[in-house]
Amino acid sequence: MIQVAILGFGVVGGGTAEVLTQNKALIEKKVGDSVNIKYILDLREFPNSPLGHLVVHDFNTILSDPEVSLVAEMMGGAHPAYDFTRACLEAGKSVVTSNKEVVATFGTELLEIAAAHGVSYMFEASVGGGIPIIRPMRVDLASNRIESVSGILNGTTNYILTKMVTEGASFETVLKDAQKKGYAEANPAADVEGLDAARKIVILAAMAFGKRLDPNAIPCEGITKITTADTDLARELGYAVKLIGHTEKSIDGRILAMVSPRLVPISNPISGVNDVFNGILVKANMVGEVMFYGPGAGKLPTASAVVADMVDIMGHDAASLRAPVWTDAAPEDMADINAYVCRSLVVLDAPAAAADKLAAIFGELNVLRHTEGRLSFISAELTESEVCEKIALAGYPLVSRIRLL
Amino acid sequence: MIQVAILGFGVVGGGTAEVLTQNKALIEKKVGDSVNIKYILDLREFPNSPLGHLVVHDFNTILSDPEVSLVAEMMGGAHPAYDFTRACLEAGKSVVTSNKEVVATFGTELLEIAAAHGVSYMFEASVGGGIPIIRPMRVDLASNRIESVSGILNGTTNYILTKMVTEGASFETVLKDAQKKGYAEANPAADVEGLDAARKIVILAAMAFGKRLDPNAIPCEGITKITTADTDLARELGYAVKLIGHTEKSIDGRILAMVSPRLVPISNPISGVNDVFNGILVKANMVGEVMFYGPGAGKLPTASAVVADMVDIMGHDAASLRAPVWTDAAPEDMADINAYVCRSLVVLDAPAAAADKLAAIFGELNVLRHTEGRLSFISAELTESEVCEKIALAGYPLVSRIRLL
Repeated sequence: MIQVAILGFGVVGGGTAEVLTQNKALIEKKVGDSVNIKYILDLREFPNSPLGHLVVHDFNTILSDPEVSLVAEMMGGAHPAYDFTRACLEAGKSVVTSNKEVVATFGTELLEIAAAHGVSYMFEASVGGGIPIIRPMRVDLASNRIESVSGILNGTTNYILTKMVTEGASFETVLKDAQKKGYAEANPAADVEGLDAARKIVILAAMAFGKRLDPNAIPCEGITKITTADTDLARELGYAVKLIGHTEKSIDGRILAMVSPRLVPISNPISGVNDVFNGILVKANMVGEVMFYGPGAGKLPTASAVVADMVDIMGHDAASLRAPVWTDAAPEDMADINAYVCRSLVVLDAPAAAADKLAAIFGELNVLRHTEGRLSFISAELTESEVCEKIALAGYPLVSRIRLL
Repeated sequence: MIQVAILGFGVVGGGTAEVLTQNKALIEKKVGDSVNIKYILDLREFPNSPLGHLVVHDFNTILSDPEVSLVAEMMGGAHPAYDFTRACLEAGKSVVTSNKEVVATFGTELLEIAAAHGVSYMFEASVGGGIPIIRPMRVDLASNRIESVSGILNGTTNYILTKMVTEGASFETVLKDAQKKGYAEANPAADVEGLDAARKIVILAAMAFGKRLDPNAIPCEGITKITTADTDLARELGYAVKLIGHTEKSIDGRILAMVSPRLVPISNPISGVNDVFNGILVKANMVGEVMFYGPGAGKLPTASAVVADMVDIMGHDAASLRAPVWTDAAPEDMADINAYVCRSLVVLDAPAAAADKLAAIFGELNVLRHTEGRLSFISAELTESEVCEKIALAGYPLVSRIRLL
């Protein structure tokens, strides 16, 4: 019998217990052994839960029980989740997690500790909820050099952007609706400012390129400034507006990673990923482009990924299944965002007569539009610095600028 | 050093050699050992290939070489591919393959032989080309009870259907164009009649439900009867027409599997899978719906999946990574197609005045249309038998009937 412990009996912790209970028979068949939840760590009591009797309040009960060989950490937040994870790994217990903050911030160290102790640290659920992405990148794309990863990594913002497009409602209106429905938190900053997506792109970049960037150093632009004028214009031009986490190796071998709203052409399968769903497009040198699509959050989907990691560890010799040990990126491993080249939709508060001046400054102006005193165009491929310089040079107030993917 | 052999130096065999050569450094880093192609089996000579000196014509050279521990079979066709695979497994060599015919027909036996000899038989490349699907179903969805799998499994037919929609050209015209471009074979029957998709849905059903159905028993309807009138009407009603391989557990626990054209609502992510791309949607009881999208065929994408299996085997203790052993389905494990329930688009050669009679027979008639002497409607949910009976009862010539997904 394999004894497991769950840290945190919130949404995902509860879901993990539910998956282990409801699909017990098929899980045990795959593992080839019986699986038992021995403890659930939480500060609260759960008198009405059928698993309430498993709740303990002292982490040391779990840490000091040699029968517990596998721990699922779903506490959220950096501390004490990191500290408990570290202690479990050092005690020879494998750990699986959905905690993107811990993985993005402390992943390198925790993977090293796991390897040193012959146990596993797995985090499929930390990116894309129930969508298989971490293991497919590690195993299924093992024969490829990964070139870039672009994804809709946050369900809350994707729900908001989808509603803005389909209902023509403003960001503020849709945000309130999302908060009512439980899709957005009372303090939505981590989602709408792109911080959640930034942590996830750090994890995906580490999987793709073997280097963990500092999550706080990721250039990050949220969706709070996106207007229905932007989404309407984008649709008219054949694009969807999506909050995209993007990472790629730049020509000089450094890693670029950023989170920002993007115009995604409708020919790109990511453009059709709507509502709270996530989609992650991986470009690799042999397979070309593959996309992984599904529920990027939610109780049971996320728990599905947590328990998949548990089954993987329980069913195998753990030592052969350690996640890849990436290293921490040095500051010089990170590409300068100012050198990043892309096309942009630029909207300026300018008269139609300004087109000639703008053409002289920007060169090519694609699909030029002039409505309501605003000039909109798609620029040629320019670096971030070049775009900013040219906008300044034009001398007209910038209404919005959205990069193309 | 790990010595491998390639059986068949055609498109995928050549691609496999290319992936192993071009990504040699990263593959060897993941495997933790050097990897060498020792032999390539083919009847032909390849004097202009840099690997031409590795070509042998006698399979026994490979079989009797104890240094060769891993064989990639990309010969195509049932024989001698099956016989060579069997011999390799019995000799204690692991085998990976892209050969869907061998896996769908002889998979059960070959998996058993692999298990008995402590080696692996893997076939990620047999479905969906470069798209990760077999291993994600086995490992990433291990915590789920799979409920259904629906996929665009054949790139040739998807290319044809996409062109029929975007260019309004007939099946015959687009087929000729696809043949010119190398997307369709001179004899396109296996693709356009759905036989290729039928083999793939057999493999996916075996992964999902643990039972291998007889590929020859799969109800299979191709796209040869689809007209631009069908695709135009579908688009007008908010659907795409796709050739879908579908499998599900029916209520009585039996397995339904079929290949047929389907109307896919545009809200379903599969509807946006166009051109030669494949997309596979898996419904499972915990994660909900996840979709895997990418290139369903082609030299390097398919080879990417072949080499992913090779890396998985080379990098691990083979015994811990045997593919799941499914069993052969008994005839009674297979659901009766006549009991399958779905809605259908029905087009009859009938006057507008027939609507009342049809309503009396079919009950609800959704989105009724009458153009060019044809009455089109979407039926209520009916079994296959019921639909056929009601169409016969109506007494008007059937122009077309397409099931909804």
